[in-house]
Amino acid sequence: MPKLDRFFDQEFESLKKQTLDMGASVETAITHAVTGLIERSLDSFEQVHAVEKKINGYHISIDETCLRILARQAPLASDLRFVLSCIKINSDLERMGDQAVNISHAGRHYIGVEPLKPLIDLPKMADEVRKMTRVSLDAFVRRDEALAREVIKNDDIVDNYKHAIFKELTMIMKKSPDAVERAMDLILISRNLERIGDHATNIAEDVIFAASGVDIRHGAGLSGRS
Amino acid sequence: MPKLDRFFDQEFESLKKQTLDMGASVETAITHAVTGLIERSLDSFEQVHAVEKKINGYHISIDETCLRILARQAPLASDLRFVLSCIKINSDLERMGDQAVNISHAGRHYIGVEPLKPLIDLPKMADEVRKMTRVSLDAFVRRDEALAREVIKNDDIVDNYKHAIFKELTMIMKKSPDAVERAMDLILISRNLERIGDHATNIAEDVIFAASGVDIRHGAGLSGRS
Repeated sequence: MPKLDRFFDQEFESLKKQTLDMGASVETAITHAVTGLIERSLDSFEQVHAVEKKINGYHISIDETCLRILARQAPLASDLRFVLSCIKINSDLERMGDQAVNISHAGRHYIGVEPLKPLIDLPKMADEVRKMTRVSLDAFVRRDEALAREVIKNDDIVDNYKHAIFKELTMIMKKSPDAVERAMDLILISRNLERIGDHATNIAEDVIFAASGVDIRHGAGLSGRS
Repeated sequence: MPKLDRFFDQEFESLKKQTLDMGASVETAITHAVTGLIERSLDSFEQVHAVEKKINGYHISIDETCLRILARQAPLASDLRFVLSCIKINSDLERMGDQAVNISHAGRHYIGVEPLKPLIDLPKMADEVRKMTRVSLDAFVRRDEALAREVIKNDDIVDNYKHAIFKELTMIMKKSPDAVERAMDLILISRNLERIGDHATNIAEDVIFAASGVDIRHGAGLSGRS
């Protein structure tokens, strides 16, 4: 059935394209959120909300596409794993968009008052997290396990930033009670960034599973993870 | 093929049972984490880690079961939606277990020092979150949409506790610089509880989708959500 095959191929291509487009929107949302914070730009924060609406649209339509492919094609082996990985990646991407929105909420409050001091290591942490996001999507489109493993390794760098930022801001709060609210904004933003990094790690794990059929979660198949 | 049908039914039953067992473990992990905090019990926190290992085992095996059912049975309509909802619920339950572990990390630090004051509204917030978790699983097992909608409504109560706790602890930090670390522990724990509530909400949304085929996420089909 060559005609049917071509139809099925188109469905798979459409799924891949939608997932990548959603990923690009998530990257854009994160960039707007971080730019809003660094450049103290309310306009950038507003962009985040506009992009999140698009992300939510993809969220619904990717799930519909996956359901349709499973129902009509009953794919097997690596095709089935690919569809399942898209279902999971879809959830992760949507939650990354939510985190960008959370950053913009805390950021709006933060830029409404006098800045605390240069933003500690937050911009560097944000750069790492954006890199993880981009590389996880590159790994997805290329079905590249080695690249996916790079993402997972990067998670430690993000964790180190989180700890350093937390320590520094705690010191600031103890010395300057007036700084408590602003320091809290930045701590919560660092947690939002951390969660984006966690979702990129989840995506990388799903890419490895889709490509190889090997489940590396909870320490299986990759040392040092749990 | 009555023999084959019976085999398929057994697979579905096994999937349902594993998901419920995993949910029960998640409830246990949350209870241990909260008990550790309230009773200042290191032993309870250790229990959380033991239970999390079990949760991680379910996480892997439920995904395997879902993959096997999709590959061998190619289920359709409500059966397909049920399997897809189990895949998503599995992810949410695993992350709820992670949050219980995070609570026990912050909790260990907190109980190592002089308590701040009675734990603000944290125990009440924890009760709400545990209720949401339990009800979302009840809704799953009964395929009960109305019950699932109750869970979603409860999310606002949890959010209100989060805001009140944050406000009170911010005031404490501003008045008493010595209290900063302990207040931060409690703020982060309230965020962990909030995330558990968010996951219970996700589960409820998946239950509604599995039962009815209606996707209520992002405000579709249910007023007041986005």
